[in-house]
Amino acid sequence: MEETETRRIEEEVRKAVEQAKELQDSAASFLSRASGDEQSLRQRAAALDTTVRRLRSSIGSQLAHKLLDPKIADKLEEELQRAKCVITDGDASSFLPSKPQVRFLRMFLGPVDVRALKKDIQLKVKEEYNSYRDRTALLFLFFPAALLILRSWLWDGCLSAFPVQLYEGWLLFLYTGLALRENILRVNGSDIRPWWIYHHYCAMLMALVSLTWEIKGQPNCAQNQRVVQLFLQWAMMQGIAMLLQNRYQRQRLYTRIALGKAKRMDVVWGESAGVDGQLWLLCPLLFIMQGFEAYVGLLLLKTALVGMVSEWQVIVCGVLLVLMAVGNFVNTVQTLMAKLRFKAKMKRSKSKQELN
Amino acid sequence: MEETETRRIEEEVRKAVEQAKELQDSAASFLSRASGDEQSLRQRAAALDTTVRRLRSSIGSQLAHKLLDPKIADKLEEELQRAKCVITDGDASSFLPSKPQVRFLRMFLGPVDVRALKKDIQLKVKEEYNSYRDRTALLFLFFPAALLILRSWLWDGCLSAFPVQLYEGWLLFLYTGLALRENILRVNGSDIRPWWIYHHYCAMLMALVSLTWEIKGQPNCAQNQRVVQLFLQWAMMQGIAMLLQNRYQRQRLYTRIALGKAKRMDVVWGESAGVDGQLWLLCPLLFIMQGFEAYVGLLLLKTALVGMVSEWQVIVCGVLLVLMAVGNFVNTVQTLMAKLRFKAKMKRSKSKQELN
Repeated sequence: MEETETRRIEEEVRKAVEQAKELQDSAASFLSRASGDEQSLRQRAAALDTTVRRLRSSIGSQLAHKLLDPKIADKLEEELQRAKCVITDGDASSFLPSKPQVRFLRMFLGPVDVRALKKDIQLKVKEEYNSYRDRTALLFLFFPAALLILRSWLWDGCLSAFPVQLYEGWLLFLYTGLALRENILRVNGSDIRPWWIYHHYCAMLMALVSLTWEIKGQPNCAQNQRVVQLFLQWAMMQGIAMLLQNRYQRQRLYTRIALGKAKRMDVVWGESAGVDGQLWLLCPLLFIMQGFEAYVGLLLLKTALVGMVSEWQVIVCGVLLVLMAVGNFVNTVQTLMAKLRFKAKMKRSKSKQELN
Repeated sequence: MEETETRRIEEEVRKAVEQAKELQDSAASFLSRASGDEQSLRQRAAALDTTVRRLRSSIGSQLAHKLLDPKIADKLEEELQRAKCVITDGDASSFLPSKPQVRFLRMFLGPVDVRALKKDIQLKVKEEYNSYRDRTALLFLFFPAALLILRSWLWDGCLSAFPVQLYEGWLLFLYTGLALRENILRVNGSDIRPWWIYHHYCAMLMALVSLTWEIKGQPNCAQNQRVVQLFLQWAMMQGIAMLLQNRYQRQRLYTRIALGKAKRMDVVWGESAGVDGQLWLLCPLLFIMQGFEAYVGLLLLKTALVGMVSEWQVIVCGVLLVLMAVGNFVNTVQTLMAKLRFKAKMKRSKSKQELN
């Protein structure tokens, strides 16, 4: 009986070794075949992308030289747009030339590839980014609100250092996460405006700097903490704006997807169009917020220049706040302008259609 | 002429639209085919992995019940080991069940997949991790050394706050990067000990806490900055230890790869074996470093308990340092023990062979 048992086990081991070899062969052949197919798809996608670009510009130049009937040009451009959508929005998009790995991602993650080949994973990444922003916006509102409420009810008008530092640490973590996620979205084909990512780099730096900044309490607490208090109020405003933006962008994104105009990877921080009702609420709020941000920054710079406070953190935070306010303002205006141009164009083509 | 030009361009646009559709179809069919193949390879790999595990344990239990000749058992186990190596070290390894996405990675990156299917990319990630650690070790040595030298030569024995905070910010960035990279390596099949990752979480937390810690200067600078100074000295020691470890581990890894014993994804922080000459230098250094780490931690706790300093950062940093020292010590001892057991086993099997 011992004999048969031994033989049985020997047989099983032999089989397992054989299976291991077979598996290795299948895996190797699958990987090499897949990488060959991928390579050829990549080449085709890149070539087609170039062709579409070339045709577009040649239509444009022929139109300018009146060599092409505007009506035909419009029709051709529409077809090209549809072809472009098929490439960039479908499965083929995974094979378009990827943007080079961003320095920021390489710094934190090394040379690992964060590109998802499959569309459903890309969309999962995007969906999760949206819900991450939703959760974040709530914290963005409640964290500073809680600090300000505790300050006046419990702490006799003077913020304790520890909770504020906890908040600053959270901000640093948050902005790092956002910057990493947005870079990953970008690698996966989202056309998020680069400024919103730079903006998060600035915000990371500011959170880091503010951590090193001693929070002075009594005596003269109201004077010492005036800037912190203003910053917290501004953060609350940002929380509200983020909530509105998230709501607005989701609706807009779904409308645009329904209209076939947007890839689902699009992210539009602080951008605005389409759902006009909310836009009239969002836009002024964004501009007020940017103004307030610049005000806090300038106030910091003033206290540094007058010589009331000599810490280097004052100057750095002041400069960063002003920089972010100006950048945000310019980018919001640019997106609004693009939107108006787009609307005007739509109106023109609509009235043309009606004329026809 | 205008007519022919128009017709030419219409034709080209039509072709581009067609090509776009074809490309989309090829891409979709490639992706679905590849995902099917991948799925089946994954199932086969998982099944085989289970079989090998089962056979190993059944050989063990039969050996214990004296149902199996030890010589045959040794031979079978060797064969199973070889099968295991084929699965885990070759192309098939990409299809082994992956460790679930780690919480830490999800927190920073979202649900993106950082697993590299191709072995060559996995190895590139590993190689880059090694060279990152090399560069890091040099900075680890020179950054605190520069601070200490500047302190005694330029700053009259009193560290300025800004360079120290810059150093702390760098540490935070560094440990975050290391923790992210090590988690990515783990997802890609490296069997790095979990402790070394937890250790980096602790180090991240400590860097963050130390950023909020005001660096007091004159008067009484020597007293105020004693702990900072000790910490910098310890950091220099760590730099030297890291350089030695990196050298040692590379040699060891290459030896092990040559012997077919290690997958190239293995990472062995603070582990040690094989190249015995260097081990006698590395081990005492590691233990001295761990002792010094615990000493700095206990010193911090003592100053907090005596009531000389009341900041919460003192207690947190003290506890973290002691925790890290104890964890490092336990893990170093465990790896040394594993190594000794392995050596004893090798010796036994060698003398057995000689007897035969």
